[in-house]
Amino acid sequence: MSVAAKYYPNEPTEPVIKTAEIPGPASKAGIESLGKVFDSRPVYFIADYEKSLGNFIADVDGNVYLDTYAQIASVPLGYNNPALIEAAKSPEMLRAIIERPALGNFPGKDLEGIIKNVLKVAPEGQDQVWNGLSGADANELAFKAAFMWYQQQKRGNADFTTEENESTMENQAPGSPDLAVLSFKRAFHGRLFASASVTASKPVHKLDLPSFKWPKAEFPSYQYPLEDHVEENKAEDARTLAIVENLIKTWSVPIAALIIEPIQSEGGDNHASAEFFQGLRDITLKHGVVFIVDEVQTGLGATGKLWAHEHFKISPAPDLVTFSKKFQSAGYFFHDPKFVPNVAYRQFNTWCGDPARMILAGAIGKEVLDQGLVAKAAEVGDYLYSELEKVAAKYPTKLQNLRGKNRATFIAWDLESGAARNAFLYKMKQNGVNIGGCAEVSVRLRPTLTFEKKHADLFVKVLNKTLSEL
Amino acid sequence: MSVAAKYYPNEPTEPVIKTAEIPGPASKAGIESLGKVFDSRPVYFIADYEKSLGNFIADVDGNVYLDTYAQIASVPLGYNNPALIEAAKSPEMLRAIIERPALGNFPGKDLEGIIKNVLKVAPEGQDQVWNGLSGADANELAFKAAFMWYQQQKRGNADFTTEENESTMENQAPGSPDLAVLSFKRAFHGRLFASASVTASKPVHKLDLPSFKWPKAEFPSYQYPLEDHVEENKAEDARTLAIVENLIKTWSVPIAALIIEPIQSEGGDNHASAEFFQGLRDITLKHGVVFIVDEVQTGLGATGKLWAHEHFKISPAPDLVTFSKKFQSAGYFFHDPKFVPNVAYRQFNTWCGDPARMILAGAIGKEVLDQGLVAKAAEVGDYLYSELEKVAAKYPTKLQNLRGKNRATFIAWDLESGAARNAFLYKMKQNGVNIGGCAEVSVRLRPTLTFEKKHADLFVKVLNKTLSEL
Repeated sequence: MSVAAKYYPNEPTEPVIKTAEIPGPASKAGIESLGKVFDSRPVYFIADYEKSLGNFIADVDGNVYLDTYAQIASVPLGYNNPALIEAAKSPEMLRAIIERPALGNFPGKDLEGIIKNVLKVAPEGQDQVWNGLSGADANELAFKAAFMWYQQQKRGNADFTTEENESTMENQAPGSPDLAVLSFKRAFHGRLFASASVTASKPVHKLDLPSFKWPKAEFPSYQYPLEDHVEENKAEDARTLAIVENLIKTWSVPIAALIIEPIQSEGGDNHASAEFFQGLRDITLKHGVVFIVDEVQTGLGATGKLWAHEHFKISPAPDLVTFSKKFQSAGYFFHDPKFVPNVAYRQFNTWCGDPARMILAGAIGKEVLDQGLVAKAAEVGDYLYSELEKVAAKYPTKLQNLRGKNRATFIAWDLESGAARNAFLYKMKQNGVNIGGCAEVSVRLRPTLTFEKKHADLFVKVLNKTLSEL
Repeated sequence: MSVAAKYYPNEPTEPVIKTAEIPGPASKAGIESLGKVFDSRPVYFIADYEKSLGNFIADVDGNVYLDTYAQIASVPLGYNNPALIEAAKSPEMLRAIIERPALGNFPGKDLEGIIKNVLKVAPEGQDQVWNGLSGADANELAFKAAFMWYQQQKRGNADFTTEENESTMENQAPGSPDLAVLSFKRAFHGRLFASASVTASKPVHKLDLPSFKWPKAEFPSYQYPLEDHVEENKAEDARTLAIVENLIKTWSVPIAALIIEPIQSEGGDNHASAEFFQGLRDITLKHGVVFIVDEVQTGLGATGKLWAHEHFKISPAPDLVTFSKKFQSAGYFFHDPKFVPNVAYRQFNTWCGDPARMILAGAIGKEVLDQGLVAKAAEVGDYLYSELEKVAAKYPTKLQNLRGKNRATFIAWDLESGAARNAFLYKMKQNGVNIGGCAEVSVRLRPTLTFEKKHADLFVKVLNKTLSEL
């Protein structure tokens, strides 16, 4: 029996679309009413999570969509998952909700077990974790660990100097040093101030915010299909790696860390080769730069490995690996104790993560492992990709640059324009599939880990219908 | 019947201390074991939250302490509160735990009600809220709203220019403008990068992090007792206000916002007058600077008003008021629609807050209002303060600069040195009271809102015993 069938015996088999327009009238009224207390301009529809099940999301008009967007890539197992319901009803969860400790000062006796469960799905080479609250928070906490280590190695075992202690209170060097994090054009790493400074996918994420003047390297831009452009793409790796090394050598302030997504997701599902990632690892090692991999969107099985960068067999493993979204909790994994700051209270805050979300993450991780969901996602992704190749052959302008082969369901393609892409996304909703875009002209598939062959078939059926109508 | 007696009929009446040292042997073993997966250096003891009740926190050695620190000021009602247990068991909470939506895109039908419940305890003059995840996050989200408005008013109705769109992708002006937030020496507003840039209470919070080179004004330093130094303190207000205005006029980049705590908490429980706060409001209005009040630690009744700045009757009300800690959810309140950015997706992220924590906040707010806990905190605080004045008369070097009169239980004092303060805090634990410090030589009381006369009497009894032993 399929895992989806086990979890969701009553999962719908088809979408149900009852309204001519989306949002329908009940959603529209809800959006207007919600708008009085919340910025509801970006709302697609008002969801009914009681009626959502498995891979299907319901709205208040009675529409039921096959969900391939899954809350911006953040639903791990599907709606109303019985294993997560059980975890949510546990006495441990109840305590975590009502007694949220200052974990760093007064952890409960269950914290060690909670963290160990989170660590059960740590990436290869990592066995420690520091917990945060969102993807942006995770990345910034990782930057803190990186900066503290970077300065500490220069300082050796010496104490902070009086000059450091005094100057940091004025936001000045040497206590508040001028250091940079190197990231990539088209990257997305969050929208707080340091995380926005390494983000460069769309201006709307960043406009009007003061920014750290940190550099952007070029992420490789490959020609597709990859098998027909091996030499060109190899040259692209070399070109972009040279830019990275040159920036590290020449940037006006020291570059303490480099952050990269295994697949640039928000920025257009841009892929790069294992050789490129190993090249980055080599350069960061050579120059003493902390290597941070942002797995916020790519993590927890969606690409057919537990963590997407494991496809690249990077050696040695990255220094820090950040997570959030589908794992429902956030933070960074690491291995080297050097990333625990030398003095207590440097990496610290009142809550140090949310134990409720950490318990849920543990429960999610357990299901992912016990049910073999990563291998299953890889299998269904391979099937879906091959089906999409057929659709692309039939509608070449509507499925350009199909990508994500061997990356499970982490699949994307381009349309001929932003307007065409947006019309496509809307029409797909009208035909019963909730689906998302990324960058300007791309479509991204981000279904749950229980998206199976039957869902893929349904998706392709709706896709063909939609394309025939456009 | 007292609220505490209603909530906690079995609340302990005395601390129980079973171990000679704190942490005791079971805690010590737990700290060592936890240390393999978590930075346990700052842990005081391993708590047993099943056995904690009301104002008493239990540890794994069977010690039970009267808790006047309350998870760094973040327990609203006490441990194992029956109203919060009920909220945590609700179907709405279950859904919020397992179906965490991307609230900006696919809000559930219950979101409007959840937000309205949060708004029921909004500060005077505020009727909107934007939700985040922690105090630091709340402050940085408020900065984003402030910066976006600040630039938008200059831009008028014009679109972003091509130059703005392009330069922000390179972290350069004009798209990423050089703007500053003005804060105060000894302030604490969090430990992410922008929030750390406005924090200046201890170097350990900031060392080695690149910082925005934002200015720090001087927070008033009053002479105590206040009633004996009226003229000096008035002059201090004038002096420090002049510094603020001068910085706004002369700082090298425009100051878009000013952030201040109603009482500087982490930085030593430093108080300032209503006249000082009104002066700030006047200066910010005069210069078009957004006025942000950080109520993360002071908020939700602890000072005898729902929000501490309401003591000052600031007119017009502050622009943005941030919250977290005892409210369990985080974010900022506002009123003026100008703080909703002109374009959708500018103030946005995947989760836009945590509905589980927002539901809990609503339940907490309801209890605070229904049980009249703010007035009760004021009453017990007045009683406690008068008792502490007697203790201070007896032990003048151990209770210097007693402060927090008319601020409910938000009370603090100084000892003669950091070493004396730390010895005092430890001895209090040994005598059964969990209590916290702030700044270098201060002690701060941060009990729950159900800390009543009987708890105050117990506290004073242990305090007298401790002081007699030191």
